[in-house]
Amino acid sequence: MKRSQLVEGHPEPIATVTRSSFQRKFGTPRQGALSPESRAFIKLSSRLPKGSTSGLEGFSHLWLLSWFHENHNKKTKGKILPPRLQGASMGVLATRSPHRFNPIGLTLVKLESVEDDGLWVSGIDLIDATPILDIKPYIREDVVEGARFGWLEDVASRPISINWSVDLEKVRPLTTVDERLRLQNVIETSLKLDPLPLAYKKKEAENPGRREPYGMTLENLNVVFNVTENGFDIIDITAL
Amino acid sequence: MKRSQLVEGHPEPIATVTRSSFQRKFGTPRQGALSPESRAFIKLSSRLPKGSTSGLEGFSHLWLLSWFHENHNKKTKGKILPPRLQGASMGVLATRSPHRFNPIGLTLVKLESVEDDGLWVSGIDLIDATPILDIKPYIREDVVEGARFGWLEDVASRPISINWSVDLEKVRPLTTVDERLRLQNVIETSLKLDPLPLAYKKKEAENPGRREPYGMTLENLNVVFNVTENGFDIIDITAL
Repeated sequence: MKRSQLVEGHPEPIATVTRSSFQRKFGTPRQGALSPESRAFIKLSSRLPKGSTSGLEGFSHLWLLSWFHENHNKKTKGKILPPRLQGASMGVLATRSPHRFNPIGLTLVKLESVEDDGLWVSGIDLIDATPILDIKPYIREDVVEGARFGWLEDVASRPISINWSVDLEKVRPLTTVDERLRLQNVIETSLKLDPLPLAYKKKEAENPGRREPYGMTLENLNVVFNVTENGFDIIDITAL
Repeated sequence: MKRSQLVEGHPEPIATVTRSSFQRKFGTPRQGALSPESRAFIKLSSRLPKGSTSGLEGFSHLWLLSWFHENHNKKTKGKILPPRLQGASMGVLATRSPHRFNPIGLTLVKLESVEDDGLWVSGIDLIDATPILDIKPYIREDVVEGARFGWLEDVASRPISINWSVDLEKVRPLTTVDERLRLQNVIETSLKLDPLPLAYKKKEAENPGRREPYGMTLENLNVVFNVTENGFDIIDITAL
């Protein structure tokens, strides 16, 4: 669908994602809840009136409505190829893919703390600089017991094992043990979500002997890894 | 906050709410789940490419992202007065109020059926002609066990009893018993959610002897009711 008609008015960012665990789309989880130890600071626009977030501190979870600012596709297809379906297509409205008619994202996050100029949240799937259009509390009516999840119920994910050929302590010597464990968890979680696009996986399958490493950026680290038979081998990590 | 900066691109409706239980804001529930027997047909734009909803039929629930097209406030305040707080204020971002910086609504609905030109859904809080910006499946990661709901946990709603001084069968003689029961349920549910704005309630409290009826439009019926000591008395119903 090409874009034409304008909704009366237009959305304007009320906040921006900063200090996110994720700096690039590649390696960012498809849902924040899948990487509970990831985090970000949602910096509120200085133009927001005072008191806008008052009362938010009592909620454990929030919805972030975002604008997928890195999606520049002028035309969106009706069907897409979800990576987990290994080549089968699905109507875009039956997915949470960012490649949609209106590139508006819906992310459920855990609220960690409310500061004067923004919110610390965890369990994020948004990269740095993503514009936030709205923040809403997660309410009782959002919890559905016994819902059916369509094609997502049949998706099998392969178990992925991660090998560390690099010592995170040498890359981030000044951080606490807890913070290094968190970093390790965020990196492993992204890899266990099988981030390689289908086209790359095919290339890997066709050239099993190939050894050309991939790079993924998160937590302001460049994580370099090789594909192994049953997962990934992290061979280098450097600070950005 | 006044509007100025434009997000790159702009949202465009992909569908429109039609045949909704609700035609006006007054009497429309604040969350669709509160009126499970309400319904609407989400008419897809003819400009959507084929197959866009393919796979949606397997999901029991959907998110509708909508544009609150009847909100014309050019300036949004940081704090608002949620009706249920009886005069106490709350940061607008800690509420699901439609009076927000970007008037984007988030509604969870039950999917009843997928047709060629749209979707029948139930449990709706959107009025006819509301533009729909996105439709997303409700997924497992949207279900949070043990979440905390802030100020909403302390809100007490008064029990409201409804008296019927009018016979729905005479208004809609040609409908089935089931459909009349559904209509009765939708009307009673809207009234039990205490639709009168705070200002009207004050007026009622100051003039307990006053007998000036209110009118509410839903299911294409004009429902006229009086305020009683512990609820409402439905005194007239006419087809629109």
